[in-house]
Order: sequence, then C-alpha cells, then structure tokens
Amino acid sequence: MPRYKLTIEYDGTPFCGWQRQANARSVQQTLEEAIVRFCGERRTLHGAGRTDTGVHALGQVAHVDFARDWPVETVRDAINAHLVPETIAVVAAERVPEDFDARFSAVRRHYLYRIVNRRAPLTLDRHRAWLVKRRLDAEAMHAAAQRLLGRHDFSTFRDSECQAASPVRTLEQLSVERSGDEILIRASARSFLHRQVRSMVGSLEFVGCGKWGADDLWAALEARDRARCATVAPAAGLALVKVDYAPGPAIAEAEDAE
Amino acid sequence: MPRYKLTIEYDGTPFCGWQRQANARSVQQTLEEAIVRFCGERRTLHGAGRTDTGVHALGQVAHVDFARDWPVETVRDAINAHLVPETIAVVAAERVPEDFDARFSAVRRHYLYRIVNRRAPLTLDRHRAWLVKRRLDAEAMHAAAQRLLGRHDFSTFRDSECQAASPVRTLEQLSVERSGDEILIRASARSFLHRQVRSMVGSLEFVGCGKWGADDLWAALEARDRARCATVAPAAGLALVKVDYAPGPAIAEAEDAE
Repeated sequence: MPRYKLTIEYDGTPFCGWQRQANARSVQQTLEEAIVRFCGERRTLHGAGRTDTGVHALGQVAHVDFARDWPVETVRDAINAHLVPETIAVVAAERVPEDFDARFSAVRRHYLYRIVNRRAPLTLDRHRAWLVKRRLDAEAMHAAAQRLLGRHDFSTFRDSECQAASPVRTLEQLSVERSGDEILIRASARSFLHRQVRSMVGSLEFVGCGKWGADDLWAALEARDRARCATVAPAAGLALVKVDYAPGPAIAEAEDAE
Repeated sequence: MPRYKLTIEYDGTPFCGWQRQANARSVQQTLEEAIVRFCGERRTLHGAGRTDTGVHALGQVAHVDFARDWPVETVRDAINAHLVPETIAVVAAERVPEDFDARFSAVRRHYLYRIVNRRAPLTLDRHRAWLVKRRLDAEAMHAAAQRLLGRHDFSTFRDSECQAASPVRTLEQLSVERSGDEILIRASARSFLHRQVRSMVGSLEFVGCGKWGADDLWAALEARDRARCATVAPAAGLALVKVDYAPGPAIAEAEDAE
C-alpha cells in the first residue's frame, strides 16, 4: 500500500495531546476521522512525537498507508477540507518508501519553548507562551543549559509516567536566547523522554531567576531523581517545530514523548 | 490632573475595534470599565489609532488623566488585574506632561500586515494573519509598493466612511518581505486614512498574484477613485505595532483610523 508522510501543524490548546485516548479528543483521532471522511478508510496515523495536552506543533510528522495511490496535493487538500473547523492542518504530504517510519526513522526532533518575560498578561500569545513575571537572566540560563548537553541519564527531567525503556538520552542542543521580552529556548535531540523539555525549561527558569545556580542544575541531573526537578514548565509554551529524517532503514531506539 | 501614557496590546478578534460604540464591545470601553473598577473614576481614554474590528495592537498608545498621582506600576498592574479575562493588556504606563496627546502628539504610526501564503489552512495563526493560497511574488509587491511612497491623495485607498478632512497623506514606508511562507508588509506614516493599510495591502495582493502590474497600482492611486481599489485585505492580518512621539506641542493635523 502506498505510504504517505504528512507534515502537520496544530494549535494544541483544545486537544488532549497527539495520542488517541479513550475519553478525550486527541490530534491523532481528529486526523484519523478526517481521513475516514476523505477516503472511507479507517487508517492509523503513526506520529513522530507524542506531544502532550496543550503542546503545539509547527512540524509534527506522521505516516499513513492508503489503499489507493492518491496525488499528494489531493491527500493534503482533502484531509484539510475534512478537518474544518479544527485547528489542525496538513502543511505537506509526500510519498515515501514503505520502510519509512515517522517515529523510528526520525534522527532528530527540534522543539521550541517560548517564555514571555514581563509583568503584563498575555493577549495575542495567550495559550502560546509561558508568562514569567520575574526578570530572568537568559545568559545565565544559556550557560547552565550547556552542561546538560551530551549523553546523560535524564531521570530527573523525566515524567514519572514516562514509558521509555531507558532514561538515557543524548541532548544535542539546548540554547536560551532573549529577544526583547521573549525568551526562546531551542532543544534538539534524536529523541526526548516524556516531559523532558518542559522539565528542563522549568529548571532553567529556576536558574534564570536566581533560585538555582548552574551547579544546582548539574546536581539535579546527577541526582537522577525526579524529586530534584524544578516546577515543570506549562504546556502552552512548547511546540514541536521540526523532525529530521535521514535516508536508510528505521532505527528501533527512537522514542519521543513530550 | 496627572496624565498617563498607556502602551496597550490586544487581540482584536472579539472586539468591534478600538473606539467606543453604542451596540458593540470596544477595546476603549473595556479599558475604561477596568479603570472604573480600579479607581472608581469614569475616565475617557484617548487612543492614538482607531483600529477597526478584528485588528490587533502590539503597541497602541492612549492617554488618560487620573485625579490621584498613582505610581506607574500601580496603574499598569491594577488595570491589568481588572481586565481579566479580556485579551487586552497594559504593557507599560508612564507619567507624561499635560500637553501630551496620544493622538495629536503622534509623529509616526507603524503597522504590520501578515499574510500566510500557502495552501493549508491556518492553525496557530488563525485570526492573526490573512491566508492567501495562490502564490504571491513578494518582490513584485515590494517594487510596486515603492511607488506609493511620499505625499499623495489616497482617495482610492480610503474607506467610503472615512471622516478625515483631507485624503492627502504622506506614506513613509511600505515594504514587502517574504520569510518562508509568510509575507510581512510594514507601513509607516504620520497618520493613515480609514482602512488605508488594508486597502493598500489588498491592492498589493493583486500585484503579487499577477492580476495587476505596478502600473495598475499607480493608475489606481492616480484615479483618486474608491471604485478602483482592489479587494480590501481582511482585518485579522493587521496590527498597530508602534506609535512614535517627539517632544514638543501636539500637532492638530494628525488623524488615524485603520
């Protein structure tokens, strides 16, 4: 059956996250229902990242198999037509080889976390950023973040319900940059543990306001103890921006849940 | 009475625009009601730009007089507290001289218009941009826009209900820039006519999709005839970004309605 790669954007605010759940409305389910309305086929979508309730995506990736060989523009436009009025859109559809797997072929996931650092409440950015009223030192946050790079046991920054077999991950990028009132935190890795980015961002916020020094962040990592994590940052600030793929067979290691 | 300058941000989607109206909810009225709850005084807010229904602001400016000499942080935080849960926020409050007038002292208004140029519907940008599905040539739009700079009779690009005494304005900037799927149009002038930016953007969209050449845009301006304007661009893409002030007395000429 022809396999398609879908690049998907969504405002995660009204959804219980990417993954299908029994008693709540997920992005996956909403897309699968649009697919049924489009072609009459009940298909499972396989996503690259299991984004959490309220987390957004600019470039989530999923694969799906259809019985018919539809033109890619038809797949994109027809699913979008059947998604109205949901805040989900298929930005691109591509034909991919049968061994392409949105989750297991992914070689890098890129997340962006946005903090608005000011006293005034959010208006246009409501549900799209974390409002932090106390002044944050973005340079101190960036410097501390660099100590988390590389291969570590990230148990401290892993949700207690994380189902990954191993708490070891290799963090490739964790940068913190101020632009006016905004603080942008970019995180990249082959895969992340459940709530890892939000756990790291919450801990960096402790560094930014002076509650923690860089050594405290390091000690928290070293402790491999969930109880040592700072307050987890809210979902609204997080977006899955992009997923990278390389040619070749799927890699069984890759997991991702944010 | 002490005069305050307020810098105001809002998501204009739920409002009938800045200006108070009899049968609809305006940004001005919502702010004035928050001020009553804050200090018990019924005060008129004087805004720099009369943004239209659904138009946003990142840096609207208004002045207001209070009976008491409140600290600026109190003014900002208390109005914001009484604005909950509205999508309006006072970003900054300053004490200004009594001859400061948010409307008449303004020497330049800066607007930003955002187009998302792609096939897929909007999700995170819904109500915050204009989705244009046909491919636009941003360079052609920019080149054509340069011919509108300077002092002209902008009757073609003026709403039929515009109340300004004169249709002559001096356009200082009208730039068009593509960034990926986004097209950003920046317009600056001492003041604009009613719906001037959206009228110019709609006409530039005709240029971008090839329906008009640069000469057609020029001919439309020269005609000084509202019937020659292209389809006016929707409100959701427009935001009042910033208002500039210079020291010195207020200037009676300045008007602004977008």
